[in-house]
Amino acid sequence: MDEQKILDSIRKIPNYPKDGILFYDITTMIGDSEIFSELIDFLYNRYKEQKLDFIVGIESRGFIFGAALAYKLGIGFVPIRKKGKLPFTTVSQKYALEYGFDEMEIHIDAFRGKKNAKVVMIDDLIATGGTAKASIDLIKAVGGECVEACFLLRLKEFDSFKEIQKQTKVFNILDI
Amino acid sequence: MDEQKILDSIRKIPNYPKDGILFYDITTMIGDSEIFSELIDFLYNRYKEQKLDFIVGIESRGFIFGAALAYKLGIGFVPIRKKGKLPFTTVSQKYALEYGFDEMEIHIDAFRGKKNAKVVMIDDLIATGGTAKASIDLIKAVGGECVEACFLLRLKEFDSFKEIQKQTKVFNILDI
Repeated sequence: MDEQKILDSIRKIPNYPKDGILFYDITTMIGDSEIFSELIDFLYNRYKEQKLDFIVGIESRGFIFGAALAYKLGIGFVPIRKKGKLPFTTVSQKYALEYGFDEMEIHIDAFRGKKNAKVVMIDDLIATGGTAKASIDLIKAVGGECVEACFLLRLKEFDSFKEIQKQTKVFNILDI
Repeated sequence: MDEQKILDSIRKIPNYPKDGILFYDITTMIGDSEIFSELIDFLYNRYKEQKLDFIVGIESRGFIFGAALAYKLGIGFVPIRKKGKLPFTTVSQKYALEYGFDEMEIHIDAFRGKKNAKVVMIDDLIATGGTAKASIDLIKAVGGECVEACFLLRLKEFDSFKEIQKQTKVFNILDI
């Protein structure tokens, strides 16, 4: 897989969502059939021998990569969502933001009674790692084993992997 | 495809999100590898000869079905999102809710300069049709041609297809 081609396909938007931030817009990447295919194929090849039970995707850009990957692997897809979006009984996990906190949820029976379900968690971007850490905790709380946390993009300015690597392997395609 | 099997795989939650509503929870369906695969394969077979350019998915459950389908078809995926979520220049469309309104957006260059891009729009559920109608308008506004609007579930109590069928073909898998 040509990482530079993937990076080039992502639109960079200066000063979004606020001044001084360079935002990486993945919509230009997923709209490119060739690059979207190549990326999912690459992830499929990375995980196809691992006998995974589920792909867990983080709302909502993680749904795009995660659902395509789960389909290709022939396994189920499990969403982790922001608080209040999942209709059945959930486990929830708060995490700190710069100001205040946010909260993610997973269905309590997300892994369908499978003990130690082997899962890969996927999101488009890891910044501080707050969402990722909360999500890994949630997977464990409902009986899953996160064998790898997978991100398309990692923001280098944060030391996000250090904490997460205590709990799971971590993988990212691009450092930005 | 066995429609009854799909229907059975969807969890029914009484009195959610409020009293008197029976909520259809698709997470139990997408978590079932066999049924998720069968559904995407069915949609793939429905659309594979149509020379589509893009699949358009509606935030956020539409991302799950839409991204997997786009990947299988080997075409790009385009998100329609709630206002304020897309980072580049957008076109937006308001639509009425029971009380107040909501607003959806699409990137102005979603179809990458392709004229009359042929797209299928996909969402998990159509109720009143407000979101769907707004989304079809958005696709047209940025130069696309919605050849079919596709839903997993249609709530029979609403006459949602009548208006939409003036603009595009409509397809749903289950009536509930």
